[in-house]
Amino acid sequence: MKLNVILSGVFALLLTSVCLAQEGSIKNDFKPSSSNQPGQEYPQVNSQGYARFKIFAPKSDSVKVSLGLGGRGGTKLSKNSEGFFTGTTEGPMDEGFHYYHLTVDGGTFNDPGALNYYGSVRWESGIEIPAHDAEFYALKNVPHGNVQQILFPSKSTNTSRRAFVYTPPGYNKNTSTRYPVLYLQHGWGEDETAWMNQGNANLIMDNLIAEGKTKPFIIVNTYGMTNEVKWGKMKEFSIVPFQTVLIEELIPYVDANFRTVANQANRAMAGLSMGGMETHTITLNRPDVFAYYGLLSGGTYNSSEIKDKNVVKLIFLSCGSKENPNRVKTAAEELKKAGINAVSYVSENTAHEFLTWRRSLRELAPMLFQK
Amino acid sequence: MKLNVILSGVFALLLTSVCLAQEGSIKNDFKPSSSNQPGQEYPQVNSQGYARFKIFAPKSDSVKVSLGLGGRGGTKLSKNSEGFFTGTTEGPMDEGFHYYHLTVDGGTFNDPGALNYYGSVRWESGIEIPAHDAEFYALKNVPHGNVQQILFPSKSTNTSRRAFVYTPPGYNKNTSTRYPVLYLQHGWGEDETAWMNQGNANLIMDNLIAEGKTKPFIIVNTYGMTNEVKWGKMKEFSIVPFQTVLIEELIPYVDANFRTVANQANRAMAGLSMGGMETHTITLNRPDVFAYYGLLSGGTYNSSEIKDKNVVKLIFLSCGSKENPNRVKTAAEELKKAGINAVSYVSENTAHEFLTWRRSLRELAPMLFQK
Repeated sequence: MKLNVILSGVFALLLTSVCLAQEGSIKNDFKPSSSNQPGQEYPQVNSQGYARFKIFAPKSDSVKVSLGLGGRGGTKLSKNSEGFFTGTTEGPMDEGFHYYHLTVDGGTFNDPGALNYYGSVRWESGIEIPAHDAEFYALKNVPHGNVQQILFPSKSTNTSRRAFVYTPPGYNKNTSTRYPVLYLQHGWGEDETAWMNQGNANLIMDNLIAEGKTKPFIIVNTYGMTNEVKWGKMKEFSIVPFQTVLIEELIPYVDANFRTVANQANRAMAGLSMGGMETHTITLNRPDVFAYYGLLSGGTYNSSEIKDKNVVKLIFLSCGSKENPNRVKTAAEELKKAGINAVSYVSENTAHEFLTWRRSLRELAPMLFQK
Repeated sequence: MKLNVILSGVFALLLTSVCLAQEGSIKNDFKPSSSNQPGQEYPQVNSQGYARFKIFAPKSDSVKVSLGLGGRGGTKLSKNSEGFFTGTTEGPMDEGFHYYHLTVDGGTFNDPGALNYYGSVRWESGIEIPAHDAEFYALKNVPHGNVQQILFPSKSTNTSRRAFVYTPPGYNKNTSTRYPVLYLQHGWGEDETAWMNQGNANLIMDNLIAEGKTKPFIIVNTYGMTNEVKWGKMKEFSIVPFQTVLIEELIPYVDANFRTVANQANRAMAGLSMGGMETHTITLNRPDVFAYYGLLSGGTYNSSEIKDKNVVKLIFLSCGSKENPNRVKTAAEELKKAGINAVSYVSENTAHEFLTWRRSLRELAPMLFQK
């Protein structure tokens, strides 16, 4: 027996041990993800946060899932004799919601088992990795607000534009009550469906209101990419078209058709990622319109940008701990020193993803419309 | 030169002529379908109703589209050197909306270019073949009603169940007006999203109301497959669970939370396909609840089934001309002879698909709540 054969044998043994150890460490309590299409068994998730996929592609040579541990290029699936490709992520995923897609023999498709969510300028597959604090955005047996699609006239774009309006529980019964409004924006590549679909904003509000933790208010989501912006070309973005739609068209329509308190003190604007950038610019351009500002993984304010401190009731800055938490903390400190009511929030163990923003809304909502 | 070579030559020439003739007859005015995802160039449709597909699948051997002329097994696409599969339907498709999917090397996936619609118990790709009368369901510059998602408590199923409620234009302003309600059901494999997504029910109503053709009323859509029914096993279907949700839970919730006229004379029920079957059973079981009945490609009533003719204000029966139009015509005649106000409607050149049902709603709406 030659030395290299012996070494190969030792190496094979070592490799087997490593694999067995890894297999052994994955708990076998996989369940269909809560974001699956009705009745679909896959994708599955386990209690540790591993995700497992199963795709029927009998004559394909290669199926890859874009989801996987950071920077490792996703999860390659293996084919069995019945034509199913299966595989499990190399390690536990971050808790919360993730977008993903399949690469089937080089082409991009969605997972037929998963629901689709608008992100990356397309409807993508989505998966929920159960979060330890998932209760705050779960559908519970509490009074529910409604989410309504409105089509509002927009002269500046010569279209009827779509927005979604969350009205809190009781809105249809307490017909003399008027409510403040939060204008809440999605990120790049997403649209006006994001906050109520993958954001669970309505359920977060229903639960906060049921626990008496927040004042009931209206939330409005509309499309913020009025002019098309390519990823990486943000510098070419002009805020003018969207600001016109929001300030001149949507807000007057909402104030005319819903029971709002139609003044600056009862209006907030917040946004995630690119929506934060939009919030930053629009709130500074029009301090007469909004009193509460929120940037969720969407940059910061510097006190020098605030012309009149007295009209700003709150600046809320947040991000995930896997983003740049010091940046929001430092910015909030700087604003506070300048006499502005600023708060920072860092979502533990999350990155630039929706669990960060769900938690941010949970933290932001109770601070709104308190003055 | 041998005879068979000469014959081959003649045959090749003939084949070329046939292909050229066919190519020549397809107008080159293809445009992206109106049901594409934002910014997607494919699928495309031309003014004759041909549909053209383009799928990137560089390492696949075979891509087929389930859509094609009846009974011919879909449209097989051909691969070019850049990895795109392209192809055009063999002939013009029926006008209106069609569900479809791709078969990529034997696996089932959606077309990444098209929007998805819930049908066949999954989110499927959808395509719009422009109809000559498409104006009646188009988004126009008219006052728009809202479509709101409600989550209503259901003790019988121990869940919060989802429904969509269309409130007509002006509902939020005319706060003393009360409205009649149409409970409108989807078909097998679809869900409560179908009528407002692929059905365009909200736009059909907005347009009818703007033209003064119908009384404004509320429409409610909820999920009708309360117990799971497998296709072909309809005989095992029990109406009890759904009837309980509808009559004992949803209607009282809608009457308590919306400004309805909460009586039999101002309540209608209609449904397409399986939803028609449900409408048939429930209206006969509970003539005290609904006054107007509509079956859209969903069967017929016989006068012997109607216990008290005086409480039935209208029976509307419809289908596509490619279904069984004589059946609905004959049934309506039989009902009329028995002294019941019955109307039949046949949608020209359509089959068991959504253009039949969009047109049926356009015809039905003006007849509702007139007595």
